[in-house]
Formats: sequence, C-alpha cells, structure tokens
Amino acid sequence: MDNVKSKFDIFRQRVHIIIYGTNTISGRLFDIVLLGLILLSVLMVMLETVDFIDDRYHQIFVICEWIITIFFTLEYILRIISIRKPSEYIFSFYGIIDFIAILPMYLSFFLGGAQILSVVRALRLLRLFRILNLVSFMGQASQLRLALKTSRIKIIVFIYFVLVVCVLLGSLMYIIEGKENGFTSIPVSIYWCIVTLTTVGYGDIHPITPLGQVMASFIMILGYGIIAVPTGIVTAELAQNKRKGSIFLIGNRNPCPSCGEQDHMEKSEFCHNCGHKLRND
Amino acid sequence: MDNVKSKFDIFRQRVHIIIYGTNTISGRLFDIVLLGLILLSVLMVMLETVDFIDDRYHQIFVICEWIITIFFTLEYILRIISIRKPSEYIFSFYGIIDFIAILPMYLSFFLGGAQILSVVRALRLLRLFRILNLVSFMGQASQLRLALKTSRIKIIVFIYFVLVVCVLLGSLMYIIEGKENGFTSIPVSIYWCIVTLTTVGYGDIHPITPLGQVMASFIMILGYGIIAVPTGIVTAELAQNKRKGSIFLIGNRNPCPSCGEQDHMEKSEFCHNCGHKLRND
Amino acid sequence: MDNVKSKFDIFRQRVHIIIYGTNTISGRLFDIVLLGLILLSVLMVMLETVDFIDDRYHQIFVICEWIITIFFTLEYILRIISIRKPSEYIFSFYGIIDFIAILPMYLSFFLGGAQILSVVRALRLLRLFRILNLVSFMGQASQLRLALKTSRIKIIVFIYFVLVVCVLLGSLMYIIEGKENGFTSIPVSIYWCIVTLTTVGYGDIHPITPLGQVMASFIMILGYGIIAVPTGIVTAELAQNKRKGSIFLIGNRNPCPSCGEQDHMEKSEFCHNCGHKLRND
Amino acid sequence: MDNVKSKFDIFRQRVHIIIYGTNTISGRLFDIVLLGLILLSVLMVMLETVDFIDDRYHQIFVICEWIITIFFTLEYILRIISIRKPSEYIFSFYGIIDFIAILPMYLSFFLGGAQILSVVRALRLLRLFRILNLVSFMGQASQLRLALKTSRIKIIVFIYFVLVVCVLLGSLMYIIEGKENGFTSIPVSIYWCIVTLTTVGYGDIHPITPLGQVMASFIMILGYGIIAVPTGIVTAELAQNKRKGSIFLIGNRNPCPSCGEQDHMEKSEFCHNCGHKLRND
Repeated sequence: MDNVKSKFDIFRQRVHIIIYGTNTISGRLFDIVLLGLILLSVLMVMLETVDFIDDRYHQIFVICEWIITIFFTLEYILRIISIRKPSEYIFSFYGIIDFIAILPMYLSFFLGGAQILSVVRALRLLRLFRILNLVSFMGQASQLRLALKTSRIKIIVFIYFVLVVCVLLGSLMYIIEGKENGFTSIPVSIYWCIVTLTTVGYGDIHPITPLGQVMASFIMILGYGIIAVPTGIVTAELAQNKRKGSIFLIGNRNPCPSCGEQDHMEKSEFCHNCGHKLRND
Repeated sequence: MDNVKSKFDIFRQRVHIIIYGTNTISGRLFDIVLLGLILLSVLMVMLETVDFIDDRYHQIFVICEWIITIFFTLEYILRIISIRKPSEYIFSFYGIIDFIAILPMYLSFFLGGAQILSVVRALRLLRLFRILNLVSFMGQASQLRLALKTSRIKIIVFIYFVLVVCVLLGSLMYIIEGKENGFTSIPVSIYWCIVTLTTVGYGDIHPITPLGQVMASFIMILGYGIIAVPTGIVTAELAQNKRKGSIFLIGNRNPCPSCGEQDHMEKSEFCHNCGHKLRND
Repeated sequence: MDNVKSKFDIFRQRVHIIIYGTNTISGRLFDIVLLGLILLSVLMVMLETVDFIDDRYHQIFVICEWIITIFFTLEYILRIISIRKPSEYIFSFYGIIDFIAILPMYLSFFLGGAQILSVVRALRLLRLFRILNLVSFMGQASQLRLALKTSRIKIIVFIYFVLVVCVLLGSLMYIIEGKENGFTSIPVSIYWCIVTLTTVGYGDIHPITPLGQVMASFIMILGYGIIAVPTGIVTAELAQNKRKGSIFLIGNRNPCPSCGEQDHMEKSEFCHNCGHKLRND
Repeated sequence: MDNVKSKFDIFRQRVHIIIYGTNTISGRLFDIVLLGLILLSVLMVMLETVDFIDDRYHQIFVICEWIITIFFTLEYILRIISIRKPSEYIFSFYGIIDFIAILPMYLSFFLGGAQILSVVRALRLLRLFRILNLVSFMGQASQLRLALKTSRIKIIVFIYFVLVVCVLLGSLMYIIEGKENGFTSIPVSIYWCIVTLTTVGYGDIHPITPLGQVMASFIMILGYGIIAVPTGIVTAELAQNKRKGSIFLIGNRNPCPSCGEQDHMEKSEFCHNCGHKLRND
C-alpha cells in the first residue's frame, strides 16, 4: 500500500515537472505540443463557421475536436492531480478557463444539434489566453505594461471626455439630421459620432444636410486632433521610463563601494544612500 | 418671528452643507443620488428617441422624467435658498445649465405634443456637464489640461493650416471630378477633403476619375503624415512637463543644506554632490 | 510740375504706409478690410457652385464679385505705384497671386458663359494665400516649421517607402482579387492600397476573396503600426527643440559676466565659452 | 591568346567600374539610366492592366518591354562576367531578383497568351527593390531603422496582442450579429474587427443590432486609444537615440582633462564644472 502511494507520488512529481516546468526537455516539448493544439483548436473553431469549409470537412473537424478535447481533459485532470493544493489551480484564472474550454464538446454530446451550441462552441476560443501564458517573450512587454499602468487614470479621463463629447454632439446631430437621413435615434447618432470621432468612418450613416456636414467636419477635425492626447500620454510615460532607465542603468556599472546601491545619476559623486564617495579617481 | 428666522438659518446652513459640501456622509450621499439621477435622465432622453422602446415604455418614461424634474427643481430652489448671494449661483455656468435642464418638462406641459418639443427635450442632456463637476478624479486631468493649454496656439495654427489645405484641395477636386461624380459643389468637395484628410473615409463620395484618385492618394498620404504634427506638439509638451515635474520640482523642494545642489532623486538621503545628509528625520 | 511730382511722392509714401505697414491705425484697418473681403470672396466662390444658392442669389454674387474685384484691382495698382521697384512686387509670389486672382472676372467679361470659366473662377481662391501673410500669429508656427524642416528627409524617405509598399502590395492584391472584384487594374489596386494603408477606408473597393481579406488585414495592421514612424520623427524633433529651448532659455536669465554667452546648462558653474566663473554666490 | 585574355580582363575591369561603382561619370550615368528604365518598366507593368490604355498602346508596350528586357539581360550577363565570383552575385538577393525580373518576357515567348502570364508579368515589379539600392539618400534612414530594430520585439508583442483581441472580439461579434447581418463566419468577423480596430472602416460589413453597435463603439475607442502604443514605442526610442546622440555621445568622446566631467555641449570650449580648457587645438 505504501509502495503504491510512493509510486503515485513519484508519478505526481514527474507530471508536475512536465506540466508546470519548462526547464526539462519533456517539459518544453509538452508546452510546444500544447501551444500547437491550442492554435489548431482555435483555427478549427473559426473554420467551422465558414459554410463551404464546414460542409466538406465537418466529420474531420468533429473527430479532431474530440481528440483535442480528450487531450485537454487529460491535461486538466493531470494538472489537478500533480499540484499540492488542487483548489489553488481549479479556482485560478487559468484553471477556470481550462475548465470552460473543454466543456463545449461534452455539452454537445447531451444537447445534440441545438442552436445555442454554436455560441457555446466559441468558448473554446478562451484557450487563446493560455498562449499568453506560454509565450515567453511576453516578459519583454513589462515596460509597456508599466507605462500603460501609470498613465491609466489619464486615459480613463480621456475616454470619459470622448464619451461625453460623443453624447452631446451625437444628440446635436440627431436634431440636425433627423430620422429621415439615417440618424434614427440618439443612441444611433452617438454610435455614428464615435465612428466619426475615432476616424473609422464606415459610411453606413453619413450626414446629408449641409449643416450636418459642417458639424461632421468639425467632429472629424476634433477627432483627428485629440488622437494626440492618448498618444502623448503613453509616449511621455514611455520616454520617461526610458530616460530613467538610461540614467539608472549607467549607475549599474558603478555600484557604491560601501552599500552597493546601484541607482546613481551619471554625475553623482557621493552615494545618495549612505554618503560614501563613489569614485576614487 | 426671530425664532422662525434662526430656524430657517439653521435649515439653510444644513442644506448648504449637504448640497455644496462633499465632506459629510449626507453630502456625499446627495452627490451620488444626483449623479445617478443625471445618468438615468440622460439615458431616458436617449432611449425616448428609439421608436420601439418609446412605443412600449412611453408612460414610464414620462412619469420618471416628471419625478426627476421635480427633484431637480427642488434642488435648484434649495441651491438658491441656501447660498448667501443667490445671483452668484443663478448666473453662473452651472446655474444656467441647471435652469435650462429643468425647463423642457414644464414647457411640454404648455406646448403639448409640438414638433419643436423633441429639440427642447434634448436640452436635458446639458445635465451631463454637471457630472464633470461631480466626478472628483477630473483633478487628475490638470497636467493634461496644462499641456493642451500651452500648446493651444500651435494647435490652432495647425487646424487653420488643415482648413486652408482642405479649401484649396477640395476646390481642385471639384474641378477634376465635377458634379457627375458626386462632387456636386465646392463646399461638398471641401467636406469630402476633410473626410479624406482626417482618414475618416465614409465612402459616400469618392473619386472616380484616374486623376481624382491620384489627387485623393496624395491627400490621404498628406493626412496620414501630418497627423504627426498635433501628436508631436502635445507629446513634446507633456514630456517636458513630466521631465520638469519629476526631477526639478522634487529637487527644488529639497536642496542640499550644505552645498545647495538641487537635482536630487526622490529617494536620495545624501547629497550626491558633497555627501551631506539631506533629511534630518 | 515739380509740385505735382512731390505731391505724388507724398501720396505714394502715404499709400505705402497704409498698404505695406501694419503699425498705423489706417494700415491695420486696411489689413482688416482686406482680410474681410478675401474671406467674403472665398465664401462666394464656394457658394456659387451650390446650385440652389446660386439660382437664387446669382445676381448678388456677380455684383459683389465685381465690387471686390475692382477693390483688389485698385489695391494691385496702388501696390505697384507705391513701391520703389514695381518689378520686385509684380514678380514676387504674392504679386503673381494677386494678379491671377483678379483676372477671372475680367476674363468672364470677354469669354461670356463659357464652360472653362468655372475653372478659371476658382483661381480667385488663391487669395487665401494672402491670409497666411496677414495673420500675424503664424509667427508662432516657426518652431513647428523648424521641426518639420529638420525631419524633412526622414519624412520623404518614409513616404517613398510607403509608396513602394503600396505598389508591391497593390499589384499583389490585383493578382489575388482580380478584375471581377473591383480591382480593375494595378493603378486602381495601388489606389486601394493607399486608401487602406492610410486607414482612410472608403469602401468603394474592398476585398471579397478570403485570401484578399487576409492580405487586407495585413496591410491595415501595417498601416496602423507604421503611422508611428512619421509621428515619432516629428515628436522626437519637437521634443529635442523644446529640451534645447528649455536648457538654453534658462541660461538667458544668467549670461556670462565676462563674455556674455547665454547658452549655459542649469548646473554649469563656469562659462563653457571663456572659462569665467558664472555665479558669485 | 594571352593578349585576348588580358584584353578581356581589361574589359571586365571597366565594366565592373561602370556597373558596380558610382564614383566615375560613366558609372553614375549607368545608374541613372538603370533607374529610369526601372521606373519606365514599372509604369508599363501598371498601365498594361488598364484596359483602355492597353487597347490603344499594346504594341508600343510590347516593343518597349522587349527593349528593356534585352537591356536588363545584357546588364545581368555583364554583372556575372565582371564579378570575380559569379555565384556570389547570382545567389544574392539582388541577383535572384534581377533574374526573376527578366524571366517573364522570355516566358511569354513560349507560353503565348496564357492566362497565368498576367501574374508572371507582375514579377517585373520586383525591379522596384533595385531602386532601394540605387537611391543614395536611404542612408539617411539608418537612425530610423535603428529605432525600429531596437523596438522590434515590443512591436511584435503589440501586434500579437492586437490579433488576439481581434480573434476574441471578432468571435463575440459573430455571436452577437450573426450570419444575417453580414458577419457570415468567424474569420470574416475577425476581418471586420481588424478593419474597425485599425480605424480603416470600409463599411462593407457594419453592425446592425444595437448590442453590436455598442460592441463596435467599444472596439473603435479601443483602437483609437491603443494606436498610442506603437507610436509611443517608436517615439520614445527615437527621442532617446536623439538625446544620446546630441548630448551624451559628444561628451563621452571629450571628457574634461582636469575634472573628468563628461556632460559638455558640442560647442563648449571650457569645462562648465571646473573651468579648464577642453580642447587644445
């Protein structure tokens, strides 16, 4: 009995290294296979909705999807078994996504060809989030994320301002153009105003009266001009990070001989942390 | 009589704290209720214009709108009563907006189902401006506002330049394409030119002759390129504010007591120039 | 005879001060009247092409235009008379524009209702350039112009790159989509590619085959990404000008007491030009 | 026999100087002729696809194209002959392009009026790459290329993020709008999402349901906001290069011989820190 348990423990440890680790060859191989299957799965979800492809290859899609689902189910079970505290994984963000992503195929078994199924099937796309975790170079994005984080509030204020402008100008356009020119209601006019201000410009709704075209021109130039604002915010933030980075990194080559502090400015002569002289020229 | 007056004075003071203040619990609660009612009111103005929603819930909308209007009327009266100089509030920006925003419902009482009423009703949207005042995080936008203010003249020059370019190129396109290709008049061609230069591109009017398409391509690349100008202006301004703010301002508030050096980092404890301790905590 | 000549000289001098100068009251008044008439003239050229306006007010437009043309003719003659070397004005940029702008009305006298006339009439719009000269705040644009000038070559290289990309990708789309999907020829496909890359997106031509849509998506993301390039160039240039400006301008308040050099960095203790100590604290 | 060989060697040397060199007059003339012929050839490939032009001038196009092809064939042979190791040229990027670009005309000789030929003919456009090599001012683009190179990984991460967002939001829109509103499949919905996020906005597909329009508005504002990210990355990179280039690099090459201070301006003649002379010219 003990022997069985210790054998199971060894199995659990090995599985843990393969699934959660990335240092061993088998661990990395597992990650690549997982990545490939996720991409394949996502591609299939997409192609299933294209009628002429689905008509021809429907059977292959179903078989493939079952194989992939079984693989992901096995992976899900192994992840639960091989972790010390299963609840930590099950209720984590990725644990919930993994669970939801394997659900659709089993539901299709019970629900048959129900209409709602096509919606449920799309849940498999959530596996995409997994890739975000797998792709290692995302670590490179940390500087970017920091810049976006520090300028978060300014961007929210900006979006709030854009929305208020769109509500007011959209309502004005509803009054100017009216129902007969495609501006059928204030919400639709606000939608048009967002389409215009963000310089998307579908053309499904467009001003017809001269006054409406003058207003639209004003909105366009406004949108063309205020795109400078989010750009300015993020750029200024990134530029500052970079500048700080460039000043501090220089310091790395010159740590304080007394306390080891590394964040010195280039021109510093004394350590700002302990007051020790930095350079003995 | 005196007793009544002093009681009224106490009432006025209490009302003043609730309506104008934000420090007490009841004051903050009042602000939140006000914010909610404004949003509800704005939402209703918008939804009333959607035919199939209005058909079904018209009665509910009218009742809700009367309740909200009565609330805002009471608020308006209380604001006048509780302030020392009523004229200061009445003729202030927010005073006028508050007055105009409650007007439409009372007018609807006298004007009945007149056509002009739908325009008047939209005036209730002006309450949105109120939110700008209520939402406290707008204070965070001060740096942004400063950057826009200092680069104001450059942006006006830029917009003026864009308009002159649009008048000239729009007229040229009118001559090239002509009335038969949708460029029915010079103002319409200018409108098209603004649509193109700002990269909105509805497609309601588009060049058909080869020469017109060459001209349009030129305008597009011009518009694609000169968007750099407002962006550059705002970004350079923001970046400078940030640079000044992050280094110089911190230093200015904390010069070295020994040598007077001012360029310190926020976390510095010793002067990097002479090694003297900066803070005597 | 001499008396007449000297009287004429005094007249010329007075006219010169009014027309070319901006310091006297009459000179400034003249500029404002000129500005007003130019704007009126430009507005009329635009409105004449709007059929329903022209039908109603045609006579008024003609009369107004004759009055304006006579005013501009007089101004043109006075400018020639009052300047020392008339040829300098006549063959200058503004001299030629002034001449071309008054031409159309006189031509209309001889050519009658010719078709070509509507094109000629638009030449009156050239008067717009005049405003560029009159509006004084354009001087504020000098920093902007400098930034654009120094980054000129980089922007040309960028536009050249965009055009080469559009020729290659446009041709590729012509092969992928073909004549039946609206991509009737390579030049039209290149036009479409410019419309897409610059994110204008009229929708007059759009990809229909799946492969074409994949290509179009690629072009869009490319266009969305490389807009960063002109923006980056202009912004970096403006930011540097600003930085230089902010460092040097500080110096202006602290010129070297020995040589008067003004371009010092904020932390400088000795003049970098002559070695003299800057501050005698 | 030896005489012939040495004559051939002299011929090879001369050809090498003309074709590969740009210092001699004949070498520069050769480059200009080559540039002109490439542009002419590209123009002809483009115009051949315009029906009404091709109908009229087909014969002229064919003759011109044969002349150009013979010139490029001769150039190709001379390049091979005049280089020491022909394989180095033949299998280089430009060698392969040169070979592919002359192929179409010879293939047209054998294949006659085959349909596939129109595709093959477009291969002649590859000559455009040649111009990139010829145009000398491209050297000016090095700073730009450096900035793009260093921010390469951040841009890839950004594009990857945009694609994941488009897959998820596109699928969501497919569920919301459905086949009857133009969102015929998930790939088509993703295509629409890219069109919207990049602010292109053809209008060939556009949301019709209210919920779809709300989602679209969200995507538009997202796209309008995150354009700041690539712009910010490139700008911050360019600004840093510029800053380093203008201040630090200059200083590093010229530290003060007395105190070692390195932050000097380019024009500084004395150390701003200790007043010592910087250059002993």
